[in-house]
Amino acid sequence: MVAKAAPRNGATVEELAARFGERLSTSHGVREHHGKDESHFPYALPDAVVFAQSTADVQDVVRICARHKTPVIPYGTGTSLEGHILAIHGGISVDLSGMNKVLRVSAEDLDVTVEAGVTRKQLNNHIKDTGLFFPIDPGADASLGGMASTRASGTNAVRYGTMRENVLGLTVVLADGRVIRTARRAKKSAAGYDLTRLFVGSEGTLGIITEVTLRLYGIPEQISAAVCAFPSVKAAVDTVIAMIQSGIPIARVELLGAPLVAAVNKFSKLDNKVAPTLMFEFHGTKAGVAEQVEMVAALAQDNGGDDFRWAHTMEERNKLWQARHDAYFAGLQTRPGCRAVSTDVCVPISNLAECIAGTEEDMEKASMPIHILGHVGDGNFHLMILIDPNNPAEDRESHEINERLVRRALSLDGTCTGEHGVGMGKLDFLLAEHGDAISVMRAIKKTMDPDNILNPGKILRMN
Amino acid sequence: MVAKAAPRNGATVEELAARFGERLSTSHGVREHHGKDESHFPYALPDAVVFAQSTADVQDVVRICARHKTPVIPYGTGTSLEGHILAIHGGISVDLSGMNKVLRVSAEDLDVTVEAGVTRKQLNNHIKDTGLFFPIDPGADASLGGMASTRASGTNAVRYGTMRENVLGLTVVLADGRVIRTARRAKKSAAGYDLTRLFVGSEGTLGIITEVTLRLYGIPEQISAAVCAFPSVKAAVDTVIAMIQSGIPIARVELLGAPLVAAVNKFSKLDNKVAPTLMFEFHGTKAGVAEQVEMVAALAQDNGGDDFRWAHTMEERNKLWQARHDAYFAGLQTRPGCRAVSTDVCVPISNLAECIAGTEEDMEKASMPIHILGHVGDGNFHLMILIDPNNPAEDRESHEINERLVRRALSLDGTCTGEHGVGMGKLDFLLAEHGDAISVMRAIKKTMDPDNILNPGKILRMN
Repeated sequence: MVAKAAPRNGATVEELAARFGERLSTSHGVREHHGKDESHFPYALPDAVVFAQSTADVQDVVRICARHKTPVIPYGTGTSLEGHILAIHGGISVDLSGMNKVLRVSAEDLDVTVEAGVTRKQLNNHIKDTGLFFPIDPGADASLGGMASTRASGTNAVRYGTMRENVLGLTVVLADGRVIRTARRAKKSAAGYDLTRLFVGSEGTLGIITEVTLRLYGIPEQISAAVCAFPSVKAAVDTVIAMIQSGIPIARVELLGAPLVAAVNKFSKLDNKVAPTLMFEFHGTKAGVAEQVEMVAALAQDNGGDDFRWAHTMEERNKLWQARHDAYFAGLQTRPGCRAVSTDVCVPISNLAECIAGTEEDMEKASMPIHILGHVGDGNFHLMILIDPNNPAEDRESHEINERLVRRALSLDGTCTGEHGVGMGKLDFLLAEHGDAISVMRAIKKTMDPDNILNPGKILRMN
Repeated sequence: MVAKAAPRNGATVEELAARFGERLSTSHGVREHHGKDESHFPYALPDAVVFAQSTADVQDVVRICARHKTPVIPYGTGTSLEGHILAIHGGISVDLSGMNKVLRVSAEDLDVTVEAGVTRKQLNNHIKDTGLFFPIDPGADASLGGMASTRASGTNAVRYGTMRENVLGLTVVLADGRVIRTARRAKKSAAGYDLTRLFVGSEGTLGIITEVTLRLYGIPEQISAAVCAFPSVKAAVDTVIAMIQSGIPIARVELLGAPLVAAVNKFSKLDNKVAPTLMFEFHGTKAGVAEQVEMVAALAQDNGGDDFRWAHTMEERNKLWQARHDAYFAGLQTRPGCRAVSTDVCVPISNLAECIAGTEEDMEKASMPIHILGHVGDGNFHLMILIDPNNPAEDRESHEINERLVRRALSLDGTCTGEHGVGMGKLDFLLAEHGDAISVMRAIKKTMDPDNILNPGKILRMN
């Protein structure tokens, strides 16, 4: 007779079950849902999922896990792109989606405090009558706790910055279950170490974010959006570079390669010219937007761009940006049955043309289709490398292309990840990027989470 | 016969002398110069001063100090306001003013890398032909390493942010003498913990900053400055609050109380109306500035403000802002022989009127003259409490006024220091402000500087 193996982290699960009752699940379906994100990494299931409804709930989960040295992994919407939420060492997934209350809106201070599970669209819907909005838009309707954890950015970052610039303060549960608030609501402070920025981008490895205070912005008097086709990716990129160097406060500027424009046309029922394309959005007063448009149109013309094609109404604008956000899905359909490997380098704008030129050579030589797109105003762009999931050679090749791209970006003083984060996918690149600074990150992790229970295996290898 | 006491940290000084020769000084005059800043704290002299000329020099100083567990304190221009650079536990002052090279200007990327001893005026002078400028302006011509260390801000922060938003990366010598670079030059990155922001504001307690990469901005097409007198401080503050809440991108908005306007008139030979006054600066395109001016003038009028008095030429503008920067010295002269105790709270803008109202009551009751001034667009303002240095009762009273002010700011979700930093002066307030978060700061300090040699006694008490 073979003894049945004890369930992994059984004592932890038992204790959590006693505390949380039906809000703890060990069902395979729920665990599977919490053991996969939007990356290419295979499932890694947690041993149980706790549905938290308060900071106190999260404290209890962490305290119980700490006692048993069981890993604990925060879960928002599961839209991370580098395996961030995978339970690669088992443990407990703490699902924060039930912490979805907007706790406080201060229109006077242009700020808001939300529970970590509130999504960006929910927030913008909640505040729509205040004349304010929250600009950070990574595409997915991610939770704001998750966006803070990964230092997310997206299409509006060129004007409004990333989560780094837009988080004013956090409530965080530490590895021993204590809870701290990292900052008060003053717009600036010189009062000690910047713990807010330390937790932003720490991917759940230093603490679990349960509340987020965010900056808001007035909805601009005038918003205009347009697309413009160019004779080459280089011509489009050169336009962007000139624009950024002129200090034009563009709100969005997105690049799509020609094959992706074709895919987007098909997917979103649009009829844009099939050519390398920039999508623009301008925010400001009526006069300010008119000035920006004039300057950008002149720069586009200098680089052989077509006339702007305007999205006049809010409905047309929403359709345009929805199409941009759906570009990923549109791209996937260009190779049925494929899987996409996403890259995410970001370089100083003066090095963007060189970085993209080298990358285009790689794209031409590749044995599979590759789409290019991105937030070029920040020097940040993505490749979607479409591989056959059943062909290990393509998987290898995609990783080689990514590695060459990252090395190229690093040699141009750039970063291996502009916005997706490290997760499980960029650990080795992080070493190449930061050198000895990694030892400082590791020391901080070790002192803040000595038993390595907080999302272990992400950002840093601790063994 | 009495044995002569061994000089403090004699072995360290001896070893440093062997390495640095004439670039080490133990003369009383030099030590005195490095043992006092612009705060009210008494002299605390280092045992020796090393004049560093390179990161390698700083590494050697730190390595030698580490071996002997001798404190090491970075020194820029000595303009700190909370005793930051005082050698309260003895040790070595490492003077970075000789590290004054602008290492790289990238007009295309709107960024620059400087050695830590470069001052902000030197930088702006160096780049004056590029059409770019560095906006952070704390008044003093401080070193950029020092400004990064204290998370400085000043008059332009309402539009351009503080050092937090404008440092892209740092070169730092760690407590064991290793050197790291905290980030590459990409405008955004999600690659690991945000070490840049951790060192910004750490006041030399986690490492010594030797190089700083900074964001630059295009000099605006149009710059206009004006002063406007109001019937009361409240009327001026209400104007600012309405302005910020309307999202007007004002570049500067500074409050001066009526007695300080009188003092400034006298000191800087101006003839502004003696009344609570706002000084404005508008940056933008011609049309943009015209729009801003129209909106702000209307808000000022709503609150009983006089007509704007314009500084039309660059010369007039420079005179205006020089007068603002000299307000400290002008204020000092209103009570001959006095010493100023400076306060530095910052609150959410919606709480600014309440914070200032309570403060005005304290000012009226005080037994000494007190000036009010500040960067009210950020919710940040200062009191200059003018005390008789030979009257301990006034010293006590000034501390009571400051303490009441800080408690008031904290109760209004504000901070004890908007921009001056903690140094030796705000350690207890930091506890009140951050609660348990202090333990995280302390753990980080302990792991990064286990022997507490880096600027000990500042920000945190480690014993």
